Amino acid sequence: MRLDPDRLFPAEKDTRRIARAIYETVADLPIISPHGHTDPSWFAENLAFPDPAQLFVTPDHYVFRMLFSQGIPLEKLGVPRLDGGPTETDGRRIWRLFASNYYLLRGTPSKIWIDHALQTVFGIEEVLSENNADETYDHVADCLSRPEFRPRELFDRFGIEVLATTESATDRLNWHKMIRDSDWSGRVITTYRPDPVVDPEFEGFSSNIAQLGEITGEDTTTWSGYLAAHRNRRAYFKSFGATSSDHGHPNARTENMLPAEASALFEKALAGKCTPQEADAFRGQMLTEMARMSLEDGLILQIHPGSFRNHSLPIMARFGRDKGFDIPTRTDFVHALKPLLDEFGTNTELSIIVFMLDESTLSRELAPLAGVYPALKLGPPWWFFDSPAGMMRFRQLTTETAGFYNTVGFNDDTRAFCSIPARHDVARRMDCSYLASLVTSGQLNRQEAFEIGQDLTYGLVKKAYRL
Amino acid sequence: MRLDPDRLFPAEKDTRRIARAIYETVADLPIISPHGHTDPSWFAENLAFPDPAQLFVTPDHYVFRMLFSQGIPLEKLGVPRLDGGPTETDGRRIWRLFASNYYLLRGTPSKIWIDHALQTVFGIEEVLSENNADETYDHVADCLSRPEFRPRELFDRFGIEVLATTESATDRLNWHKMIRDSDWSGRVITTYRPDPVVDPEFEGFSSNIAQLGEITGEDTTTWSGYLAAHRNRRAYFKSFGATSSDHGHPNARTENMLPAEASALFEKALAGKCTPQEADAFRGQMLTEMARMSLEDGLILQIHPGSFRNHSLPIMARFGRDKGFDIPTRTDFVHALKPLLDEFGTNTELSIIVFMLDESTLSRELAPLAGVYPALKLGPPWWFFDSPAGMMRFRQLTTETAGFYNTVGFNDDTRAFCSIPARHDVARRMDCSYLASLVTSGQLNRQEAFEIGQDLTYGLVKKAYRL
Amino acid sequence: MRLDPDRLFPAEKDTRRIARAIYETVADLPIISPHGHTDPSWFAENLAFPDPAQLFVTPDHYVFRMLFSQGIPLEKLGVPRLDGGPTETDGRRIWRLFASNYYLLRGTPSKIWIDHALQTVFGIEEVLSENNADETYDHVADCLSRPEFRPRELFDRFGIEVLATTESATDRLNWHKMIRDSDWSGRVITTYRPDPVVDPEFEGFSSNIAQLGEITGEDTTTWSGYLAAHRNRRAYFKSFGATSSDHGHPNARTENMLPAEASALFEKALAGKCTPQEADAFRGQMLTEMARMSLEDGLILQIHPGSFRNHSLPIMARFGRDKGFDIPTRTDFVHALKPLLDEFGTNTELSIIVFMLDESTLSRELAPLAGVYPALKLGPPWWFFDSPAGMMRFRQLTTETAGFYNTVGFNDDTRAFCSIPARHDVARRMDCSYLASLVTSGQLNRQEAFEIGQDLTYGLVKKAYRL
Repeated sequence: MRLDPDRLFPAEKDTRRIARAIYETVADLPIISPHGHTDPSWFAENLAFPDPAQLFVTPDHYVFRMLFSQGIPLEKLGVPRLDGGPTETDGRRIWRLFASNYYLLRGTPSKIWIDHALQTVFGIEEVLSENNADETYDHVADCLSRPEFRPRELFDRFGIEVLATTESATDRLNWHKMIRDSDWSGRVITTYRPDPVVDPEFEGFSSNIAQLGEITGEDTTTWSGYLAAHRNRRAYFKSFGATSSDHGHPNARTENMLPAEASALFEKALAGKCTPQEADAFRGQMLTEMARMSLEDGLILQIHPGSFRNHSLPIMARFGRDKGFDIPTRTDFVHALKPLLDEFGTNTELSIIVFMLDESTLSRELAPLAGVYPALKLGPPWWFFDSPAGMMRFRQLTTETAGFYNTVGFNDDTRAFCSIPARHDVARRMDCSYLASLVTSGQLNRQEAFEIGQDLTYGLVKKAYRL
Repeated sequence: MRLDPDRLFPAEKDTRRIARAIYETVADLPIISPHGHTDPSWFAENLAFPDPAQLFVTPDHYVFRMLFSQGIPLEKLGVPRLDGGPTETDGRRIWRLFASNYYLLRGTPSKIWIDHALQTVFGIEEVLSENNADETYDHVADCLSRPEFRPRELFDRFGIEVLATTESATDRLNWHKMIRDSDWSGRVITTYRPDPVVDPEFEGFSSNIAQLGEITGEDTTTWSGYLAAHRNRRAYFKSFGATSSDHGHPNARTENMLPAEASALFEKALAGKCTPQEADAFRGQMLTEMARMSLEDGLILQIHPGSFRNHSLPIMARFGRDKGFDIPTRTDFVHALKPLLDEFGTNTELSIIVFMLDESTLSRELAPLAGVYPALKLGPPWWFFDSPAGMMRFRQLTTETAGFYNTVGFNDDTRAFCSIPARHDVARRMDCSYLASLVTSGQLNRQEAFEIGQDLTYGLVKKAYRL
Repeated sequence: MRLDPDRLFPAEKDTRRIARAIYETVADLPIISPHGHTDPSWFAENLAFPDPAQLFVTPDHYVFRMLFSQGIPLEKLGVPRLDGGPTETDGRRIWRLFASNYYLLRGTPSKIWIDHALQTVFGIEEVLSENNADETYDHVADCLSRPEFRPRELFDRFGIEVLATTESATDRLNWHKMIRDSDWSGRVITTYRPDPVVDPEFEGFSSNIAQLGEITGEDTTTWSGYLAAHRNRRAYFKSFGATSSDHGHPNARTENMLPAEASALFEKALAGKCTPQEADAFRGQMLTEMARMSLEDGLILQIHPGSFRNHSLPIMARFGRDKGFDIPTRTDFVHALKPLLDEFGTNTELSIIVFMLDESTLSRELAPLAGVYPALKLGPPWWFFDSPAGMMRFRQLTTETAGFYNTVGFNDDTRAFCSIPARHDVARRMDCSYLASLVTSGQLNRQEAFEIGQDLTYGLVKKAYRL
């Protein structure tokens, strides 16, 4: 199969023609990737990717979770065990298992991304299967050995204008330093992710905070020193291009305590004496503190609540975090965000981007909130929802109440480098399809649709992330 | 842009043709508006509307909330401050700000309504923008000065058969009296809205009830006198055409207490000593009391729960209620309505119309409940959900379980007089589109679809509201 | 009206053509009905169905609930009263009432099923109405008197390969015995449904358990004897073809207690001393026990939570259970299933099929869970959701995350024998429509779509239910 040039456009011919016309004006715009999880060492060292399985299978939990769901052990896909026990290391064997089970991904966005990457990056037009496993493995492996498939060369070829990675608050940012000190001009920036020093329930919370104190020279055993340490690190991250912080909490709870109360809670947290409810309150307070710092230093505040992380005890015990077992849960935003919004929600200098993993909140809570609070913007659908249908639902459920201009363009949010162009292409096609449907139904004229197409692809993301 | 005569119809040609054919049979039916918030003084006094901004911007919280969300202060849009501080009063300056930010409304129903009103009422075919701000202002202002643009003349021109306004329980209905005593034959009726004397958490609850006692001559310090006062006012409202009462509660809770228990709770509420839970229970009890009175006097009972009103403290403090900060919340109907439904749900003489602000309840709770309880009917989508897509979702999520005949036609629910024809037109187009899709997919034949088209536009609303 | 041969296919011509092409390859595949509620006595005795009303109206709560919602008393539809009081018994009068109110079912799946059955089983092509009530009654009644309309003959004519009924744990399965001992080769199997002996809040729980002890010869006054009795009955049900157990709980709660704790709770339950929370915990524990037994005996575990059963007190008092008053409620799966999934979720030998009555969980909880846990599969939409639109939503909301291969084909779940071919036909048409939309949008190629069509219709259900 060759990729259909009209893929993902509406079936009805007139609407498809309009979608295609808008798409042609945005297809080649540069990629702005303001939130993601690629590895900065790739761009610092610019070494060849090791093998096809290491590029497409082993690090991609969307892929291995689906194969696991059909009974294929993670060990056979090369996923490392915490105890260092044996797992498959032969890339070819992993690739064969992947290829012969590739049909399991039918109907998923992963298949769209992989088909796109195999064709546009590696020139493979056949659908992956048992029959072509060895041939495709050899072909991709051969490509990877060539200089034009090194990370920096792909970065340029993909047309990436800026790419944000995400680092923990105590990360020294050495890879970013190496990128900055190199002669390469690619713009790879970092993002401030302080979960391990903000969440009292994170593994090693108090030692993480001690480390934060060491790095910053602040006395992080006190509330004011702890806050100062955050300010210090935010400034350091900014010096490596960061324009935002990122916060992944179990829920959207915010708090707005008096300093004495916050300080007392911090001491309790540091002593490991928080109840789960207090830990939750502390995380909530820290979102408000981060908003306050954002008003000082201009970083965007990204909040993405609602995931029950590492849902399976046995998998967590055997393989650790981030193995495809993060499951969305019902999320409340209306009550949870109120303390933060009462304090800062009408401040036009602040920019808070909220993401969701519970689509029932889109029309009910998030679009109504983003459609009135100037500080609040809606992040795009992601995780399980950056599918074509998920993107369409997002527009259909939010535009009527929040419009287009309270959204912030697309985030690929990926660890899978080769999927970046594919993901942005899917987003562009779906936005153009949605715009075309509004034209066909007389809700927008063509000129309006073309303008919005530019905004959704390029203008809004640059503005929202101050890039 | 001229309005597309086929706007909002399905893109596929055969389905569009059928939708258009059904629409042609309903497009010119009279407008029945059984629930709304237009100002009865307009029709009593029949004065010219003051200026274009006062007609389109300042009173319409859908419009100013969107502009506010993008950083435009409410003061600049002429929204009055509680402290009487300065706000913009120059209609032309407000209009310029509105016109140059009109693009923010792209993709929202507000844009559809305003485009429709500007074209069909005022003859303006260009999309509003910075470029035509002065020209359009002058044109609309000129129109408003002419007799044929007075409220009663527009009422007739809009083809309104009956229009319901909403008044508080203690309102003397003087404007309605003036309309009744005038030589104008337009049918403007009232609706009984007792929230301020039913909700113990409403500002001035006990003095509101004292006022209720004064007006009715009942002893509203006792439970039985309080109930008698309601009966009295309901009869008074009925004498001004009311066929329904309307109740906007935070949730759908109902209660069915013994009289002694209800009486004790009433006394506690009157003394300002209710806990939040008790206040909630009292509101719930009053829905059941209202249902009981409905069986006596025949008024329809409208319940619309699920809004977190006046969500922003600073906005509430500066501008007061109803400033676009009413945010929907997750709502339960299955448990909440049970006490009321156990008491009256199978009574075929009673008519309860329930509205929702949580679309996840449509297929899960409301359609199954309305599809079996004879007393229960589903109100149309409104607030954030009377968009074209919201209306389509409503039909798609309810028809399969509740059918068409447990719904009650359209409510425009508006303060914006000129949007009434636009809103009804959108509803008619979307219903015809939905019906056409059932024809194209072989689920209805044409004759059935045409019959249902009449019912959804005219028959069901007259029957449901006893008009 | 004749049934449109292209009914339920997408309107757009190219997509419709592809849907039709796929459909042609699956339309005549045998029907596998792994979960339903037809009466085994029909196939044991093979007597003629009594009359048209007894076939189409009186036993079908989808039909009589809709008529009741519009004010028609259940008595007039022949629904028996608990007190034995008078209800209509004249089939012709019931049929007339049904026919003249048949328009109330417009837009519902019931109408699709009945139209289909009337045309394909009885050759009636007109839409049912007051005008043809007598004529259609006579015609159907005449058919029913003929040998080729006996249950076994219809079973063969419908192309049913296997049909599962559902029996209570203490049922002696005499009808199934009679079928097995007959010379008829139709495959009618049972399903183990132990709710009355698993749910401490079920009427007569402790006497049900005493009866379970009697039948099995186990001492069901002890926890170990009680579990042994389940094992005994499961084996007995297996000997009558059962391949699954079925559990209808108010919610999805599971527990994983230590044996001593479970045993103590069982004793409390048996003594009638459980709090509602404890009863809930006991039901949750029993799901885990059933999973454990499934690993021993290979029965599939079906869980369908989330119904508020018999919602109306007065209807329950007058007519008893299952009168159309089972209302879906908000359901949590992520936390509720965790104890079970931590114990058995990664076991590839186990097969748990979960059904939902809360569509907001599809994309948020169920597809993410089924897309990673090998033991978990998604049951198809049913109850209020086996409508054409409901089936389409199911695929659109689950495929992107769980793919096709974590679903289990179609369940008709019906008491209405003649609706079985209609329901399977609707499911096949909707699946083909969905597949066609993926082809038109370039997400699948044709070969992939045809393969999946076979799997969704025939392959997956046989595999999932081990049939």
